[in-house]
Amino acid sequence: MDLRDLFLNIEEYKDKEVKVEGWIRLHRDQKTFGFIDFSDGTTFEHLQIVYDDTLDNFNEIKKYLVGSAIEAKGIITSSNGKQAYEMHATSIKLLGDCPEDYPIQPKRHTREFLREQAYLRPRTNLFQAVFRVRSIAAYAIHKYFQDRGYVYFHAPLITASDCEGAGEMFQVTTLPLDKLKGEVDYSKDFFGKMTNLTVSGQLEAETFAMAFKKTYTFGPTFRAENSNTKTHASEFWMIEPEIAFCDLEGDMDIMEDMLKYIVKYVLDHAPLEINFFNEFVEKGLKEKLEKLVSSKFTRINHEEAITILKNADVQWVFTAEYG
Amino acid sequence: MDLRDLFLNIEEYKDKEVKVEGWIRLHRDQKTFGFIDFSDGTTFEHLQIVYDDTLDNFNEIKKYLVGSAIEAKGIITSSNGKQAYEMHATSIKLLGDCPEDYPIQPKRHTREFLREQAYLRPRTNLFQAVFRVRSIAAYAIHKYFQDRGYVYFHAPLITASDCEGAGEMFQVTTLPLDKLKGEVDYSKDFFGKMTNLTVSGQLEAETFAMAFKKTYTFGPTFRAENSNTKTHASEFWMIEPEIAFCDLEGDMDIMEDMLKYIVKYVLDHAPLEINFFNEFVEKGLKEKLEKLVSSKFTRINHEEAITILKNADVQWVFTAEYG
Repeated sequence: MDLRDLFLNIEEYKDKEVKVEGWIRLHRDQKTFGFIDFSDGTTFEHLQIVYDDTLDNFNEIKKYLVGSAIEAKGIITSSNGKQAYEMHATSIKLLGDCPEDYPIQPKRHTREFLREQAYLRPRTNLFQAVFRVRSIAAYAIHKYFQDRGYVYFHAPLITASDCEGAGEMFQVTTLPLDKLKGEVDYSKDFFGKMTNLTVSGQLEAETFAMAFKKTYTFGPTFRAENSNTKTHASEFWMIEPEIAFCDLEGDMDIMEDMLKYIVKYVLDHAPLEINFFNEFVEKGLKEKLEKLVSSKFTRINHEEAITILKNADVQWVFTAEYG
Repeated sequence: MDLRDLFLNIEEYKDKEVKVEGWIRLHRDQKTFGFIDFSDGTTFEHLQIVYDDTLDNFNEIKKYLVGSAIEAKGIITSSNGKQAYEMHATSIKLLGDCPEDYPIQPKRHTREFLREQAYLRPRTNLFQAVFRVRSIAAYAIHKYFQDRGYVYFHAPLITASDCEGAGEMFQVTTLPLDKLKGEVDYSKDFFGKMTNLTVSGQLEAETFAMAFKKTYTFGPTFRAENSNTKTHASEFWMIEPEIAFCDLEGDMDIMEDMLKYIVKYVLDHAPLEINFFNEFVEKGLKEKLEKLVSSKFTRINHEEAITILKNADVQWVFTAEYG
């Protein structure tokens, strides 16, 4: 079963035997017993598995390395340790082993190091939290708009049009580049014309707003600016609501309401992850997010913005666009 | 207000005045009164607006053409016509006019014709139904996986890797094509190497399954096959669940459960649209979908498939993949 379901209904499973599959995050063994810090990725919570030498393969289990995949059966019992519950194993099987030089050892890793281990970093606490929050936030975005009758629109990504000159574009082609010589005959390209990756689904979403009144896109967008800063990504997911019969005030109402909804949804559905960020990534983050949810946003125009932003302690700035 | 909210709570609004904004779908005027078939795109249902010569701008209103955007205020009343309710207008204002040669007139259009009017076709009944069902189905996909603890994963679209040779790829580049001469120096391209649009997020999703146990992607995918058939799209959205500790039977269980869930969700949340398809696009569709939801899927292997598919009346075939 998933740890998520186990922890959601833990009282129900007390003194019962369950079976779980997942990975060893930490392993301490003593002469006649051992502890496995076990995680299956369906929740931020780990399960402590206790085993002893009554198990047939006790001497094998002792050798299982961090990162290995195991199947564990056992009884869920109250614990005297820092966890409220632990599992007393009745059986532990190795499903996939892990080498000794497995890079994700139970210690702090720098983000630079983890960037080089991109395929393994989702197994760390930091990226478990980051990617689950991203998933939950993405769902909250859909839920917000769908509950309010917006039509979700998949804007085309390969396009022959620019969008208000929003940014540099990537070109998309099936022409054999090594055979090109000077002027390019785009009638021979896949779509018979020059095409790029979209910088915004706005143009198409606007035609949908003229038919469905309320529509939103939420999909990938591309910018080919040669900018290597922490805040620039050449590929990112963007939300673009387009609403007919709405003015700038209405637009700002929706933006404020949506932001609060999403942040609150994440606070409610990923409390362990937010606590982790609050403790290890940015002190005070939780309070900052809770304030965003409960505050009334101050609305200023561009001219006021320059003075006010210079003189005030401002946490967030959002901009709205109309027309 | 949105027509969707009006029709969801129509009893509550009986004999009350409401304000709506939307478009004229059909307009019939008589000497002293007129009927406007009105739609705002938030629901498949239309509202009939009745107005008469007690309105100041009666002679103006009579001239509003099909496709025009209007704001209408009026009292919701029981109707003797085919609609259960209609609006008796107390005010009608033109928000945006529409020329006489507006292509989407109240008659049947061929899909070929509508393809040439891509920016207007969401205003037809057919594409109102198609795109709302797509939106609702997309949401059902997210809801299915999120309710079951899957982590939603945005697979990168620009990639330097192929995926099991799944298909022809589009190349992505910022090199100036008209300046290329023979051999290409990819160290000068945006990412310093040759890159393409992904044909599948599977590879990346598999690394996530090894960390989150249950993960899914749902995003755009690209195939550059030069195939001009009705069933081939060079850009399409694909769902890819990846589950660790699962076998082929478990995979098929999830697939069957997911398909039934999505189809049922659409049947429940877009009944008017499904009825429309059933009547005007494919007779018997509704029954076929209801059968899919209530049936137990038959599972066959590839060898059996050849014989069975030749001799049976099979409605749908789905294939599962393992490993």
